[in-house]
Amino acid sequence: MILWGYWRSSAAYRVRIALNLKGLAVEHRFLHLRRGEQCAAEALALNPQGLVPALVLDDGNVLTQSLAICEYLDEIQPAPPLLPHAPVARARVRAFAQAIAAEIHAVQNLRVLNRVKALGHDQAAANAWAQHTIAEGLAACEALLRDRPGSVRQGPFCFGAAPGLADLALVPQLYNARRFGVDLTAMPRLVAADAACLALPAFAAAAPERQPDAE
Amino acid sequence: MILWGYWRSSAAYRVRIALNLKGLAVEHRFLHLRRGEQCAAEALALNPQGLVPALVLDDGNVLTQSLAICEYLDEIQPAPPLLPHAPVARARVRAFAQAIAAEIHAVQNLRVLNRVKALGHDQAAANAWAQHTIAEGLAACEALLRDRPGSVRQGPFCFGAAPGLADLALVPQLYNARRFGVDLTAMPRLVAADAACLALPAFAAAAPERQPDAE
Repeated sequence: MILWGYWRSSAAYRVRIALNLKGLAVEHRFLHLRRGEQCAAEALALNPQGLVPALVLDDGNVLTQSLAICEYLDEIQPAPPLLPHAPVARARVRAFAQAIAAEIHAVQNLRVLNRVKALGHDQAAANAWAQHTIAEGLAACEALLRDRPGSVRQGPFCFGAAPGLADLALVPQLYNARRFGVDLTAMPRLVAADAACLALPAFAAAAPERQPDAE
Repeated sequence: MILWGYWRSSAAYRVRIALNLKGLAVEHRFLHLRRGEQCAAEALALNPQGLVPALVLDDGNVLTQSLAICEYLDEIQPAPPLLPHAPVARARVRAFAQAIAAEIHAVQNLRVLNRVKALGHDQAAANAWAQHTIAEGLAACEALLRDRPGSVRQGPFCFGAAPGLADLALVPQLYNARRFGVDLTAMPRLVAADAACLALPAFAAAAPERQPDAE
């Protein structure tokens, strides 16, 4: 398999973590997002959305969208699982991951910040947009991890004693939060889960600065 | 089960379609998004994101995020299936649905358009933001449905002879596209799948104008 990514892409970072957790080796290739390489014709042939990641399977099939790719990896290589077994628990984990992917990351990624600048705003305004989006979104994610009536949340990871789909969405988003200077002091559950993840080799090896295309 | 929704919410619309396809009855309750009812304390206790839908199960558990809810419904009531069986095919369907939920809908929903206006822009500029987001995103989705080397796409739905998770993401997004005056002439596959869906009672009954809170 070939993973097309970019060191600072949150979405590619999620897939790198999933591959590491599963012990799956891939060839890494890179598209430089700030130089617009994801919008070249060959890149659009892989992913018409002009985004990373794209995972090219050995038979030539191309998969896109990081959470869909992670669930694919979970289906072809079930151990260790990225989702719990019970339907309600699975739904909670997926909802947490989607809250980050859709309501936070998709609204603060490079493409949308460029749209804000195209409206006539400067980089500081674009950064403020990102900060607001991340802070508001993570506050809701912190609340999604609160204890529920009749059950006390188990840590140290987002949803229990092992990392999963929620954690591989969380860690890249907290990396972004720190880049943009978001105050995380009111989010102790998120910060604790992130710390537990970063202590694991599968997460540490997927960090942006550890990638060959890091600048 | 109780579904908290809003007639014009794309995300609630997706869940209504899934419930109808599965033949599952729920009690419908409503939060008026334009009046901000989703941000009242009781609403935030259900969904800290301040969004609809929220599905309250009979045991009091609350599920959020429309695609996670639809996969939950698919797991507790497998027939008719919302996803194909093979992992690659499942990944394609999920990716298509996530491309709409994250890269289109999350970037053009009411909350983000209000953010654009908060930057000092008028309603016309907010509408142009929505149009651009929808047009660009749907063009990529049309490309995701193209024939692939070695296989010809089967219609009339997004991914075959029966509607599924991709279709229940597509139909609300095309409803939005028409509201915002997006030109769909270059998207024949999407328009054909939408038409096939709207001919089915499960989709027709979920339409915004058919809901009790429609204005």
